[in-house]
Amino acid sequence: MLDTVDVPADLRKLSHGQLRQLADELRTEMIDAVSTTGGHLGAGLGVIELTVALHYVFNTPQDRLIWDVGHQAYPHKILTGRRKQIRTLRQGGGLSGFTKRAESEYDPFGAAHSSTSISAALGFAVANKMQGRPGKGIAVIGDGAMSAGMAYEAMNNASQAGNRLVVILNDNDMSIAPPVGALSAYLARLLSSRSFMELREAIKQIARKALPRPLMNAARQADEYARGMAQGGGTLFEELGFYYVGPIDGHNLEHLLPVLENVRDSAEGPILVHVVTQKGKGYAPAEAAADKYHGVQKFDVVSGAQQKSTPKAPAYQNVFGDALIAEAQRDPTIVGITAAMPSGTGIDRFNKAFPERTFDVGIAEQHAVTFAAGLAAEGMRPFCAIYSTFLQRAYDQVVHDVAIQNLPVRFAIDRAGLVGADGCTHAGAFDVTYLATLPNFVVMAAADEAELVHMVHTAAMHDSGPIAVRYPRGEGTGVPLPAVPQRLEIGKGRIVREGKTVAILSLGTRLADALKAADELERKGISTTVADLRFAKPLDVAMIRSLAVSHDVLVTVEENAIGGFGAHVLTWLSDEGLTDAGLKVRTLRLPDIFQDHDNPAKQYAEAGLDATAIVATVLEALRFNSVNVVEGARA
Amino acid sequence: MLDTVDVPADLRKLSHGQLRQLADELRTEMIDAVSTTGGHLGAGLGVIELTVALHYVFNTPQDRLIWDVGHQAYPHKILTGRRKQIRTLRQGGGLSGFTKRAESEYDPFGAAHSSTSISAALGFAVANKMQGRPGKGIAVIGDGAMSAGMAYEAMNNASQAGNRLVVILNDNDMSIAPPVGALSAYLARLLSSRSFMELREAIKQIARKALPRPLMNAARQADEYARGMAQGGGTLFEELGFYYVGPIDGHNLEHLLPVLENVRDSAEGPILVHVVTQKGKGYAPAEAAADKYHGVQKFDVVSGAQQKSTPKAPAYQNVFGDALIAEAQRDPTIVGITAAMPSGTGIDRFNKAFPERTFDVGIAEQHAVTFAAGLAAEGMRPFCAIYSTFLQRAYDQVVHDVAIQNLPVRFAIDRAGLVGADGCTHAGAFDVTYLATLPNFVVMAAADEAELVHMVHTAAMHDSGPIAVRYPRGEGTGVPLPAVPQRLEIGKGRIVREGKTVAILSLGTRLADALKAADELERKGISTTVADLRFAKPLDVAMIRSLAVSHDVLVTVEENAIGGFGAHVLTWLSDEGLTDAGLKVRTLRLPDIFQDHDNPAKQYAEAGLDATAIVATVLEALRFNSVNVVEGARA
Repeated sequence: MLDTVDVPADLRKLSHGQLRQLADELRTEMIDAVSTTGGHLGAGLGVIELTVALHYVFNTPQDRLIWDVGHQAYPHKILTGRRKQIRTLRQGGGLSGFTKRAESEYDPFGAAHSSTSISAALGFAVANKMQGRPGKGIAVIGDGAMSAGMAYEAMNNASQAGNRLVVILNDNDMSIAPPVGALSAYLARLLSSRSFMELREAIKQIARKALPRPLMNAARQADEYARGMAQGGGTLFEELGFYYVGPIDGHNLEHLLPVLENVRDSAEGPILVHVVTQKGKGYAPAEAAADKYHGVQKFDVVSGAQQKSTPKAPAYQNVFGDALIAEAQRDPTIVGITAAMPSGTGIDRFNKAFPERTFDVGIAEQHAVTFAAGLAAEGMRPFCAIYSTFLQRAYDQVVHDVAIQNLPVRFAIDRAGLVGADGCTHAGAFDVTYLATLPNFVVMAAADEAELVHMVHTAAMHDSGPIAVRYPRGEGTGVPLPAVPQRLEIGKGRIVREGKTVAILSLGTRLADALKAADELERKGISTTVADLRFAKPLDVAMIRSLAVSHDVLVTVEENAIGGFGAHVLTWLSDEGLTDAGLKVRTLRLPDIFQDHDNPAKQYAEAGLDATAIVATVLEALRFNSVNVVEGARA
Repeated sequence: MLDTVDVPADLRKLSHGQLRQLADELRTEMIDAVSTTGGHLGAGLGVIELTVALHYVFNTPQDRLIWDVGHQAYPHKILTGRRKQIRTLRQGGGLSGFTKRAESEYDPFGAAHSSTSISAALGFAVANKMQGRPGKGIAVIGDGAMSAGMAYEAMNNASQAGNRLVVILNDNDMSIAPPVGALSAYLARLLSSRSFMELREAIKQIARKALPRPLMNAARQADEYARGMAQGGGTLFEELGFYYVGPIDGHNLEHLLPVLENVRDSAEGPILVHVVTQKGKGYAPAEAAADKYHGVQKFDVVSGAQQKSTPKAPAYQNVFGDALIAEAQRDPTIVGITAAMPSGTGIDRFNKAFPERTFDVGIAEQHAVTFAAGLAAEGMRPFCAIYSTFLQRAYDQVVHDVAIQNLPVRFAIDRAGLVGADGCTHAGAFDVTYLATLPNFVVMAAADEAELVHMVHTAAMHDSGPIAVRYPRGEGTGVPLPAVPQRLEIGKGRIVREGKTVAILSLGTRLADALKAADELERKGISTTVADLRFAKPLDVAMIRSLAVSHDVLVTVEENAIGGFGAHVLTWLSDEGLTDAGLKVRTLRLPDIFQDHDNPAKQYAEAGLDATAIVATVLEALRFNSVNVVEGARA
């Protein structure tokens, strides 16, 4: 039956009764596709029926369906004209693993970071209302995403959309990790106090919204009192101005369809439909797994066994987690903070060792940072482990609560640089720029996992102000880890290789390519120094001065966009007049585009940040300097 | 009696009965002080009794009292050893207009941006708990500040602090402007459904918390059911895990003191105390004014008449507001968005002209930006008017929802550069850096108010992606405003003055000082070009190339920290090899410190960004180039 459905209009030709089979086929298709590509599986499996029901009931794409985060949108992609490409998911040139405007008119709003959907849906709803056009805004948001302040800000403004706005709360008691906090506890209480609604009851609940307002108010109030008696209060969502409907079994199409049809036809709004789903639903290996197959490698459909890639080296996040444990064993004031990403950040390891010193605050980076600032002001040594792009959520807190007050909060910034399959939404391209511009900040980048261990120790020992260490997604280089971490001198780099003509100033893990480039240049007779600056701020100005006066060409290399390390080096050189006399400086950085997903090596080649690009840059700079090329040494 | 109180310990020697007189004297002292300095008046007047009661009941500074925003903390400053300096408020070298850690041990956490207090208080509370030390975290937060997502994120995590955390909700139905949104409506319903608690009732409510848990739970549930009957549900705060107490009359010490004493002694928590106050309380002119004397100039205490400074030119915010009205008259898709700052951004004017096209979303910058992105995706032309430092709150939304999707959201960024009395928390020092590093963004800075009009028009007409215009706080330069705004070519600057040896590349309102510097240089025989680049991104690379090849020295000037306009110019010059041949480039920018409050002219002199500093920089650069100095022309 799935073969007959290319776009949702085809779906709407089917009867209610046919949709169960369609959902089953959709689930099978999705499992099969992800088994060949890897990617996010559990979340999509949990919304198969919801996806079918939403496209069946609402008039997509005119009604704007916005999947929060978007990693659960694979079934949505299959039903909206992208079935043929579904086996290219997350591959270079293939479909994005999230929703993306450029991909389809059925993706009205791109996503990948959590909790944006209600704000966006409200924008669509209000814009259509103002322009006198049809079209609702429908946000599908998980219970985990609801812990972010942004979702609350949007709910606080939702009433202006009236019945144009529908929020589907997809309550699976699980985001990437189990959710935390009061909201999560509240939803659990709500569920335990209310059984799944009978179909007739759920329809009645919405149908009432069509009553004339005075009658409706009276009915509503009576209902609230009754519920107050039975269940301890109106819902939080009602207090924020929503009509609350639910809970509904999100896998039961016979309940979902009529309820959503009533929601669609309601004259009143905004409406929040509380749908309960099970992550990984309908695929036994996923249902049985603790993480519900949130993110998977390619796998065998029958057994559920995932392909194991044999790691050549430990992942940076795990090196970080272990290094933090070592610091915490030494120092009882060290605590670890994550915003709902315990495994992605390595805080899961720390949590096992020091559960009472671990804080998972939910998807709430703003709170994470200012909470850490409060802890630091009271004598603790907090490490905030937050991905580079997610730390953007807390930029004002970093500036206002940490940097201005010069509080020693430690930032462990994973996913710095390009990240491969997750694409530009997860690429940590800007943190050096947005942090190093702040007074008081120390900004480090690890060249390899041994450096990371030193830098975690350095951060732990640094009590005079904020300090950050950035490092990439994925495996380290395989260097041996230090038995005893070293406390690095703040603002001091290291010379990794000595030469005479060209100096490559590297920040972060491009160091490997810088060394490769140096080999290649040496083969061409160009003597090359390679320095690992370690610190984007403060710069090792003594080293930079010394390299500037003794070399003809300086090339900076970093996994960050314009305005970062290279810009700081250039600025200092020009402040000091060191470029006045004809020093050639080039800064290699991420390009001024949002790069599509692909494997990281290809991405770095495209970015012009691999060894080949470094060599080409040096040769270009030396074009006017052929004497040195020939002599292989400074004149 | 106020003379006997230098610090809170002195206060605690008084009897309950003496505090009324102390509060009255404190109110008089505060009015008198602010009449001589100007500053925030209404908010402080509203918390006189609360300030006295909190310091009397809690053991400050060991208990950490954190005033959200901090502009209501003048009475707190008077009671905590700073009475002698209170008439230096907001003056250069004087007390900050906000709380500040460096000022006093009674300011455990600095503030100025809203909604940070609960996160910070939670940090203090948890740190003390972990270290086995006494000390609660007490956050005093306004109802307006509660609309920010950050406050919600913190409440969602509050339970971990137990009775260490106390949140005082200071409900005055007013932040700077009247509050908006569902939360505000909810608090109003809460107040209308509950009369002020009788003293005995309020005490009983807390005393119950000391019951053994099973008994307490039963009592609580019974109470909730009763309230559910009478008032339609438990409170939102209870659903988020707080013990809710209130509402209490915040000006009645006889109610405040025993309730706070019970809160202090409660074994249960966290507790939220809902205190109702009146902004401007006890000073007739403030009570009578629509804005409750939120921010005032120096004034006459008897009449309340404020000193009027005669403006020489219209304020930038008003020029923006009027320019936006003109665009909206032409184009029905233009809408204006503010995050609770209608008057500060000029959106108040727009609102008068187009109330149905104005959105005040409350203190919710994250939502503001993604809501605007949704509007833009559905064909509207939204202008987000947000101060430079407050836009930091929405940085991830700017990156993830606007820039990556290349949506034409227009950003009107007021308070760019240094801002005078509000100090570093409000100084827009980083926006060029944090925006210009993003692909797809156009970043403009207005050199004067006429340029601002052109740039608002240019932004309105720019449909191909995000665009921002930044401009400073305060009055324009007095140039005539254009009758018909001009659409500027994207990425094209203008030559304001032609010369031969030195080129000053200005971005923003430093242009006036650049021209003054050019005059001074000309008097020294140094022929000087001055260009207003208008765009930090994209750069006018044709103009920069032409200036680079025809001048000996380029100096960039901007009201922004490192990593911004100057860094982009340097980076492009080095990419192109234009610095290889000995061009001297200097970038003048804000220094790498958080500058204290003072008047803006002094701040810019301190920053090295006035005409004198520009001249000195040029002379330094020309030191090795004395031929040109003598000849006054390029060789």
